[in-house]
Amino acid sequence: MSRLTLALDIMGGDNGPHIILSAALSALQQTPHLHLILCGPLTIMSQWLSKQTSNIQSKVTLSDCPQNVSMAEAPAHALRHKKNSSMRRMLDLVNNNQADGCVSSGNTGALLSMAYHVLKTLPGIDRPALISLVPTMNNGKVYFLDLGANINCDSEVLFQYAVMGSVLAEQIANIKQPKVALLNVGSEEIKGNDQIKLAAKLLMDSQNINYIGFVEGNDIFSEKADVIVTDGFTGNIALKSWEGLVKFAITEVKNVSQHNWLSKIVTKIATPLLRNIYLRMNPDQYNGASLIGLRGIVVKSHGNASSEAFLCAIKEAIQHVEMQVPDKIKNKIQAVLMERH
Amino acid sequence: MSRLTLALDIMGGDNGPHIILSAALSALQQTPHLHLILCGPLTIMSQWLSKQTSNIQSKVTLSDCPQNVSMAEAPAHALRHKKNSSMRRMLDLVNNNQADGCVSSGNTGALLSMAYHVLKTLPGIDRPALISLVPTMNNGKVYFLDLGANINCDSEVLFQYAVMGSVLAEQIANIKQPKVALLNVGSEEIKGNDQIKLAAKLLMDSQNINYIGFVEGNDIFSEKADVIVTDGFTGNIALKSWEGLVKFAITEVKNVSQHNWLSKIVTKIATPLLRNIYLRMNPDQYNGASLIGLRGIVVKSHGNASSEAFLCAIKEAIQHVEMQVPDKIKNKIQAVLMERH
Repeated sequence: MSRLTLALDIMGGDNGPHIILSAALSALQQTPHLHLILCGPLTIMSQWLSKQTSNIQSKVTLSDCPQNVSMAEAPAHALRHKKNSSMRRMLDLVNNNQADGCVSSGNTGALLSMAYHVLKTLPGIDRPALISLVPTMNNGKVYFLDLGANINCDSEVLFQYAVMGSVLAEQIANIKQPKVALLNVGSEEIKGNDQIKLAAKLLMDSQNINYIGFVEGNDIFSEKADVIVTDGFTGNIALKSWEGLVKFAITEVKNVSQHNWLSKIVTKIATPLLRNIYLRMNPDQYNGASLIGLRGIVVKSHGNASSEAFLCAIKEAIQHVEMQVPDKIKNKIQAVLMERH
Repeated sequence: MSRLTLALDIMGGDNGPHIILSAALSALQQTPHLHLILCGPLTIMSQWLSKQTSNIQSKVTLSDCPQNVSMAEAPAHALRHKKNSSMRRMLDLVNNNQADGCVSSGNTGALLSMAYHVLKTLPGIDRPALISLVPTMNNGKVYFLDLGANINCDSEVLFQYAVMGSVLAEQIANIKQPKVALLNVGSEEIKGNDQIKLAAKLLMDSQNINYIGFVEGNDIFSEKADVIVTDGFTGNIALKSWEGLVKFAITEVKNVSQHNWLSKIVTKIATPLLRNIYLRMNPDQYNGASLIGLRGIVVKSHGNASSEAFLCAIKEAIQHVEMQVPDKIKNKIQAVLMERH
């Protein structure tokens, strides 16, 4: 592939721009055809860039942004008053085709609002979704969406989410005919609310989607499905509760293990194992959550992301560009909508 | 307290009646004023009873039920065609005041439908809820509801759930002015769907409830709240996903630990710790989930409950009888509704 350009919001996140600049450098070193447009305050960026090799310097463009979206800022406020922020600039660059995709670890709500406003959804898609990989038994993975982009999902939106998840599993995870399931309170057809039952009917009628039916909460970490679809309210609460639960498990193991020397050894060894699950459980800290269904590529890294995590998010964005995910989603949704006529 | 009578469905659950009969015997031995009405096939019950002491025999009544609700049976089918089942009989006994409460480990959906149909809700309560205790950091516990009794919850139902949860925390867990929270996708007031925002307003306006605001998924296992309220769709999926996640963590720890002798020791010690969390995480296996908001006391034990778990569920029912939970809920809901006028 010829030159691939990503725009990065260097001001997003809790850990300061140096984390993101360090990830940017690694990405440039590992991916020869990558070019980056860094969005943020010029002083910080030029100081950093001056210390890099001329090869790296030739692959970086700096875009000075006087504004910054804070982590606690209301999305509506950011949308209205932060047109010169690093987050907004990066989205504008994607919208103007100056960048092929973008990555931010900033305020999720503001990013969702701005991306939806600037990039708009693809034809056939009503609402974007936030999607990520969740680890499953036997080193498997499942695409889980929506993580909170859209808390009120009607049956059409759930259907579109299933289509988009299926495209990601095919294109990024390289799974042929990925098994797609709807998350529900039971596996029988009569279970669930009206929107989920209607979405199931739409999916059953589609020849283009390998729909396997309803799965329950305890099936998420099994290998039953490659893609699990739920509304953004349930998805967000489930995802965050897993983070809380693994933290709780780590604390419990520590507490119980303080009693004798053998237990202390156990803690020393078991805790990192659980921490590892915790990191994998917390998908946007692991490899970034993608905002899909838009006319451009947007990857969200965790606000508290390390340099390694942000690098994973950059790689995720590169994959989306190389596999032309928005085009693939557009084609797939057109194909499934054609079936209905 | 004088005689306390519970009706038990001995045919519910996956493990056969002997598990339940064994729990019944322990309960009778531990609680002198307890009397049990066992509902099930007479042959099984009388064979078991003939082997007991005369003291135990004097405290047990057998109610012969020719029918049985199977675990896979559709609730509507059970409601219509299983009027002589052990599950239905136990509810009829509560409704006729022959029993003070009842316990089943049978088909949850059928139990919910039958209990709602037979016992009806208390005045001021639109829908019953399934509630249980979830463990939190530092050996704490939180009442979590609804676990799936009602998948479509409007703001009034969420408000009533908050009131009912508050009563349980006060009466059963003995917490003064329990902190009540609504589960949401963010802690700011602007977050969430219409029903949750309106429920928050109703709770804020109530002097009788110590409402502390929204909590997020990752706050469930912290000690922020004593009662966490959500709709039955989200609650059911969250609860089951925790079960799946802890199972997954156990498998991961086992897999990683197979590499050397030290790791094998770790597995030997860490696995029971995680299993213990798993059992506590799976509340109806731990101490039964209560179906509250009805005119009678119904406790649901897990289908796969051990004898110990079923005994915990019996003890839960005894507590509800002794604390007169339905009356307390009725009084509290009347008090909060009076405030509005």
